[in-house]
Amino acid sequence: MLDVENTVKWIYSFEEGNAGMKDLLGGKGAGLAEMTRAGLPVPPGFTITTETCMYYNQHGKKLPEKLEESIFKNLKEVEQKSKKIFGDSEHPLLVSVRSGAKISMPGMMDTILNLGLTDETVKGLTQETQNERFAFDCYRRFIQMFSDVVLGISKKKFEEKLDELKKKEKIKNDFEISSNSLQSLIAVYKKIVQSETRREFPQDVREQLLMAVKAVFDSWENPRAFTYREEKGISHSLGTAVNIVAMVFGNMGNDSGTGVAFTRDPFTGEKKVSGEFLMNAQGEDVVAGIRTPIPIAELEKLSPLIYQHLQEVSRNLETHYRDVQDMEFTIEKGKLYMLQTRSGFPSVSADAAAKILVEMVNEGFIDKKEALKRLEPHHIDQMLHPRLELKTKVPLLAKGIAASPGGASGQVVFDSPRASKMAKQEKKSVILVRPETNPNDIEGMLAAKGILTSRGGMTSHAALVARGWGIPCIVGCEELKIEEEKKRMVVNGKVIKEGDFISINALTGEVFLGKIPLIEPKEIGENLAKLLNWADQIRRLQIWANADTPQDAEKARGFGAQGIGLCRTEHMFLAPERVPVVHEMILAAPLVQELKYRQEKLSQELDKAKEKADKERLKKEIQQIAKELKQPLAHYKKALSKLQVLQKKDFKGILKAMQGLPVTIRLLDPPLHEFLPSYEKVLEEVITLRIKSPKSKTLKEKEMLLNHITRLKEQNPMLGLRVCRLGIVYPEIYEMQIKAIFEAACELKIQGFEVLPEIMIPGVGFRAELEATYHQVKKTANEVMQKYGIQIQHHFGTMIEVPRACLIADDLAERAEFFSFGTNDLTQTTLAFSRDDAEGSFIPVYLRKEILENNPFKTLDIKGVGSLIKIAVEKGRKKNPELKIGICGEHGGDPATIVFCHQTGLNYVSCSPYRVPVARLAASKAL
Amino acid sequence: MLDVENTVKWIYSFEEGNAGMKDLLGGKGAGLAEMTRAGLPVPPGFTITTETCMYYNQHGKKLPEKLEESIFKNLKEVEQKSKKIFGDSEHPLLVSVRSGAKISMPGMMDTILNLGLTDETVKGLTQETQNERFAFDCYRRFIQMFSDVVLGISKKKFEEKLDELKKKEKIKNDFEISSNSLQSLIAVYKKIVQSETRREFPQDVREQLLMAVKAVFDSWENPRAFTYREEKGISHSLGTAVNIVAMVFGNMGNDSGTGVAFTRDPFTGEKKVSGEFLMNAQGEDVVAGIRTPIPIAELEKLSPLIYQHLQEVSRNLETHYRDVQDMEFTIEKGKLYMLQTRSGFPSVSADAAAKILVEMVNEGFIDKKEALKRLEPHHIDQMLHPRLELKTKVPLLAKGIAASPGGASGQVVFDSPRASKMAKQEKKSVILVRPETNPNDIEGMLAAKGILTSRGGMTSHAALVARGWGIPCIVGCEELKIEEEKKRMVVNGKVIKEGDFISINALTGEVFLGKIPLIEPKEIGENLAKLLNWADQIRRLQIWANADTPQDAEKARGFGAQGIGLCRTEHMFLAPERVPVVHEMILAAPLVQELKYRQEKLSQELDKAKEKADKERLKKEIQQIAKELKQPLAHYKKALSKLQVLQKKDFKGILKAMQGLPVTIRLLDPPLHEFLPSYEKVLEEVITLRIKSPKSKTLKEKEMLLNHITRLKEQNPMLGLRVCRLGIVYPEIYEMQIKAIFEAACELKIQGFEVLPEIMIPGVGFRAELEATYHQVKKTANEVMQKYGIQIQHHFGTMIEVPRACLIADDLAERAEFFSFGTNDLTQTTLAFSRDDAEGSFIPVYLRKEILENNPFKTLDIKGVGSLIKIAVEKGRKKNPELKIGICGEHGGDPATIVFCHQTGLNYVSCSPYRVPVARLAASKAL
Repeated sequence: MLDVENTVKWIYSFEEGNAGMKDLLGGKGAGLAEMTRAGLPVPPGFTITTETCMYYNQHGKKLPEKLEESIFKNLKEVEQKSKKIFGDSEHPLLVSVRSGAKISMPGMMDTILNLGLTDETVKGLTQETQNERFAFDCYRRFIQMFSDVVLGISKKKFEEKLDELKKKEKIKNDFEISSNSLQSLIAVYKKIVQSETRREFPQDVREQLLMAVKAVFDSWENPRAFTYREEKGISHSLGTAVNIVAMVFGNMGNDSGTGVAFTRDPFTGEKKVSGEFLMNAQGEDVVAGIRTPIPIAELEKLSPLIYQHLQEVSRNLETHYRDVQDMEFTIEKGKLYMLQTRSGFPSVSADAAAKILVEMVNEGFIDKKEALKRLEPHHIDQMLHPRLELKTKVPLLAKGIAASPGGASGQVVFDSPRASKMAKQEKKSVILVRPETNPNDIEGMLAAKGILTSRGGMTSHAALVARGWGIPCIVGCEELKIEEEKKRMVVNGKVIKEGDFISINALTGEVFLGKIPLIEPKEIGENLAKLLNWADQIRRLQIWANADTPQDAEKARGFGAQGIGLCRTEHMFLAPERVPVVHEMILAAPLVQELKYRQEKLSQELDKAKEKADKERLKKEIQQIAKELKQPLAHYKKALSKLQVLQKKDFKGILKAMQGLPVTIRLLDPPLHEFLPSYEKVLEEVITLRIKSPKSKTLKEKEMLLNHITRLKEQNPMLGLRVCRLGIVYPEIYEMQIKAIFEAACELKIQGFEVLPEIMIPGVGFRAELEATYHQVKKTANEVMQKYGIQIQHHFGTMIEVPRACLIADDLAERAEFFSFGTNDLTQTTLAFSRDDAEGSFIPVYLRKEILENNPFKTLDIKGVGSLIKIAVEKGRKKNPELKIGICGEHGGDPATIVFCHQTGLNYVSCSPYRVPVARLAASKAL
Repeated sequence: MLDVENTVKWIYSFEEGNAGMKDLLGGKGAGLAEMTRAGLPVPPGFTITTETCMYYNQHGKKLPEKLEESIFKNLKEVEQKSKKIFGDSEHPLLVSVRSGAKISMPGMMDTILNLGLTDETVKGLTQETQNERFAFDCYRRFIQMFSDVVLGISKKKFEEKLDELKKKEKIKNDFEISSNSLQSLIAVYKKIVQSETRREFPQDVREQLLMAVKAVFDSWENPRAFTYREEKGISHSLGTAVNIVAMVFGNMGNDSGTGVAFTRDPFTGEKKVSGEFLMNAQGEDVVAGIRTPIPIAELEKLSPLIYQHLQEVSRNLETHYRDVQDMEFTIEKGKLYMLQTRSGFPSVSADAAAKILVEMVNEGFIDKKEALKRLEPHHIDQMLHPRLELKTKVPLLAKGIAASPGGASGQVVFDSPRASKMAKQEKKSVILVRPETNPNDIEGMLAAKGILTSRGGMTSHAALVARGWGIPCIVGCEELKIEEEKKRMVVNGKVIKEGDFISINALTGEVFLGKIPLIEPKEIGENLAKLLNWADQIRRLQIWANADTPQDAEKARGFGAQGIGLCRTEHMFLAPERVPVVHEMILAAPLVQELKYRQEKLSQELDKAKEKADKERLKKEIQQIAKELKQPLAHYKKALSKLQVLQKKDFKGILKAMQGLPVTIRLLDPPLHEFLPSYEKVLEEVITLRIKSPKSKTLKEKEMLLNHITRLKEQNPMLGLRVCRLGIVYPEIYEMQIKAIFEAACELKIQGFEVLPEIMIPGVGFRAELEATYHQVKKTANEVMQKYGIQIQHHFGTMIEVPRACLIADDLAERAEFFSFGTNDLTQTTLAFSRDDAEGSFIPVYLRKEILENNPFKTLDIKGVGSLIKIAVEKGRKKNPELKIGICGEHGGDPATIVFCHQTGLNYVSCSPYRVPVARLAASKAL
């Protein structure tokens, strides 16, 4: 251990360090060193390394043996440079002691200023500055600060005495206190220290310094900092550095001052030094809000030389760091000192970020790839959605999960029809608040400016619909206790009624009580467009969109989508005027299927029958069934042909909007009972009718409906009669859809549009399923194309969303021309997690207990689902190297998933229209 | 083509063929050839190959050019051997023409006898036999048979004429018709042929022969045969052979006769020629039922020489085939002719099969491995379950799916409490008939002799319970229209009321109307025990059993189980006296969990809080929660400790029953709501009460219950809060179970029992789940063992039933000491098939449409689920070569799956106790 102590370099002077040494010197220390190296005006100083901190904390709070010697050796150099002496009663050197970890975090000891003041040295300071009041004020502040952070004496005890004094002297501001009063206050302060610590306030400057250093190291293990690191996954073994810097004073008169500045405007991105400053002030005064800081531009008038110097420094720093900088500076008696510099990029607005990146590329500071690397998805999110004007201060009410980005402000409504009415008829901005949403809420959801639910997660119904339509949405906000019947909710004790105003920030998940103005989004701005074009030039992965309507398709195309990767036909069944037709189809289908099957079975028996009596009986039964079949079959066919007309219209709209680009249409996917009224509702109606009007016709009808619903009800609908199974059990439904697609395509082509339909079969697990549907598609398509006398270029493929499909992907690739991973369902089955159930129950517990790192419905589970995808890609491409492969789950818009898709060799990702720009960016970053 | 025709050998004489040529000569032809080669007395003849049939059917019903020539060349040899001439008017050779495919199937043309008779040759036959009546009767029969099968004239037309004649002559039996009448009947027959075919009945014997050959070939494409092949998956390109054999006559007087015989007794297996025969009769008379056949033993008295010859032939055949033989023979004028031989093994009873196999091994005919190869699972099924005495003739009522083997006969009951009452109090044998069953039916199911359901499949609740308890069960019997309220069912027009007798044969799925006596099973008989011991000697795979009770465990051990592979703890929660305790636990758990979580969260906030007001508020809230928590926590703990006592008793019973053998106990698996009353029922009650007594206390209670159930309700419970997720969300439940297991084990060990508990964690998908549970198990187990001051040897492992678990099996194998594939759930998730939903809806359609070959819940889906298993075994063993791997799904008892398990290198399969003997056999066959 002694060896280590003796050979390790515990301290680096600013001349010895550089920007690359963040691990060892922390962010602040590395910045100061780099500025010093670049010849910028930095006060002399040095950094005690993060390793020292770790040594200290690992050795029972003992500093390395040689450290003290080294500190004072380095301090000697500072004395020489500053021409002052630490602890000297004539030319005393004062220093600041500041912590500086690699990553900044709350809870750490921040700064002690003016260290080195004692009853003796304060005299020297008075002499040097010819300002007694200034000197005693520094001392007073130092005792207060040191006592708080190093000695652990509550700030309050000192503030009380200060307040007493001001009261007694009837003054309002600290700076009005006289030099004499300050001196007596210092005496009082020292008494407090005496009584709290049972010893004098330290008068040995070396002791002061060592105590401060230890206090910084101790603060690394402060509980708040520890918890923060736990939460953010920051290693506990990084440690913090300590920066010891010669003090410079911005409060030495009107030729002194202090300020903060960006090298470019953080709101507009304009290339000019921006920020604010105060003359005759110390750092804390700028942010304390007592005096109003002055914009940097004013400095030019006040002190053109200093302004010019600051601009020079700013240019130097940008050239040096190739990044926008956030600087702290102090002017001491007309001389500029730089106290800190760091990247200003994380703090600039999205618009500014885009402008800065584009200009930095143009200026040759960075290349396009670097610009794209720095642009973050949240910048794009901010630019594409309205957001809250956050300067408006209203109370924070609750916090949920930000599920669809943007901001919204409006009146609370707790039911969807009311929301729709208020929005459409009364022209009000409404926020729809629901425990959770379901398809019956669609109308209200589309009418709302924002959606807020107390249950559900990132992929709940509310979240999916909201993201699809670009409506700001917060889900899973558990603090809301919604009392629907009372049209109100109770949130942390506050009662919010229908019509009250709330605002939601769906970038952060925050819900505010009251109105907040909105900043409306622009179109993709010039700078973002330029950045995305660069992204397009370098990315290999194509970006497609999920869109179910012509409007969505146009939106997607506008955002740069290169095709439609998923057009869900079931959403088309939900329009109110279609619902009765869909019901008719669903209620007839199982009966028709059963009767047809019985007919077939009896015919086979008839073929085999030998006895005359048997034959007669069978013939009679067959006739009976034919009779029974007549009515439901007629209903079924009528409903199907009505739907066919409507679906043709749907497909025409989408194919037209996407002309020249592929449109992947998925045949009907969800279980049929999803289109029927809820079991609970109908049961209630039936029971009520049974009691109240047991002989009514309505009861009979409702009972029949209930029977149908009960028959279609499933234990686990997710794993039941849905996807291609529907098409195989009820082939007439898929046939109707295939006809509608090809009729739409033929009619458009005749009109001169280029159409590229791709037929996608959902939920395939067996080769035979794909074969059966393939032959149906080919047969029906050929019939339609023959009718129109025209050929339509089209492709046939399958969604891969069942684990078995991945395992037999080679088989499937012999028939399918494309695969599209439905990662929502594939995640559900691979993990045996039902999204609807898991996100509201055990996923939150799993995240809390760290069983899961991420919600697997938000970020793809690469180890599990990802390895199935890899197996499928490998097997599929081996059999069919031309196979086109994409992904069309919710994950398609998730940047981490996009990187995986790129690496796994997919051809495209398909996401909701609003995620297309983010996906274009993410795909370029994947390279 | 001509080349092929000229070089192909279309015909093989019996001397040229052998037993190995079934493909080319069909089963019958190969048998005749083999007998001929073995020097047995077979009439001369030859076989036209199956290839000829295929040629004929592929060339527009044209026979190969050289065939005719070849037929008559071969026929010449037959003439020489039989010293008769085909078509000769003095010594006419008559032949039989018989089809003979490799596999026999319905719909094929079977046999034409006496071919070669014409108006001319009938005279020769008269002369030769000195029996005019015999000759004309042969001719009459020939015309009738030929007209039916070759010329396609309905048999009825001839039978009508025969009946007219008998009526006219006032006689009852065919054999009473006089020679003259037969002659006039022949004239009438010939007229029928003339008028139906517009030509004479063929008088050219060569033409007769060629027409018959073509008719055989035509019958290969007969629709019934075609459908049969489709259903059974028999290739359409096998073709049928044609056997042409010189006629011998068993009806030439009292020194002639015909019969069928087995080389060993087909009912007892005793080694003696058994069968029956008739003197002075042709083949069809033995089976026609007009005369009663005589047991073979009688032949010894009637004709000792023939009897001796038959015994000799029998011995020869057994030596030759090393198998029991089923023979047809004819005696013509004191000379024995063998007309057919084939394996008699498929027709012998299970008891006979076991005896025959054991004796054949002892006799050196076959080795043990061959004996095991021939023993089939259905033999064991038959031996271990009561079966219907099938000689009793009662009407067949319907047919369903045989789901649990055995037979039962008793009174129909349509509800479970009634079934239980009738069985227990009234001591009646009942058959429980239900649309489908659920856990509420358990009592009735256990009381019933048999279970019959109209819905569900092989893995429905009824099927699972029945197989587990060895109760005969037929499911999915769709023909039953059950009218529960009327306590009756309508089946194909017949009304069956409560108390009516039915019988079920759950080996075949047949339901009979009426009582049928039962044959009670014996213990594993001596012969079967011997065979299974041989199986044990050679198999590598261990056989374990699934058992939840000491009774089941004992049963399993008795059947030879080497351990318990799955002890489901949830079944223990269902005992009526435990239900209230379980309810209490379930209703308290979520509330306790939520309050605890809120408490924890607030404490964290309190730690961070700075403002005094905040701290006060938080403290108050924490106190409030502590107050709220008090009551539910007390309930929760009380319920858990009650259950712990009961579970300890459960585990003691099982561990004791299996002492010295491992017992794998699975911690709680199903979602908690499975233990609560059904949502639908309570909802109905609440709605009704709301209308009828809106202010009642009952309503309030029911509403609260409904609230609880609704909170626990899940969209897809299969993929919800269950398996190890339960243990992680509610750790107290698993802790209770772990304690109970180890307390049981410690107490038993102290008593001197050797206990080997293995703790199995269900539904793991993430390594962290396994880790969390592992640490819980170790900690709790250590505490208990310390308390008792004793060490318990135990293992920790996991079920693999989630696809993700297979993909990260290497990770899991670092912690788990064993894997057990839960193939039921693994099939559900890999295929995205919910068993409960799929078996009643789309699986039957998929089987019908041949999308699926088998029900994947019955026979493991090797291509899909199997490849995941292979991945898991490979990854798991790579990381941990000591890993013990088994399977404990329903598939564990399926022979095809057992072969797969053996090949994949598993250590054991675990199945229901009644399947253990079958599994022991299947494991030996896998080698």
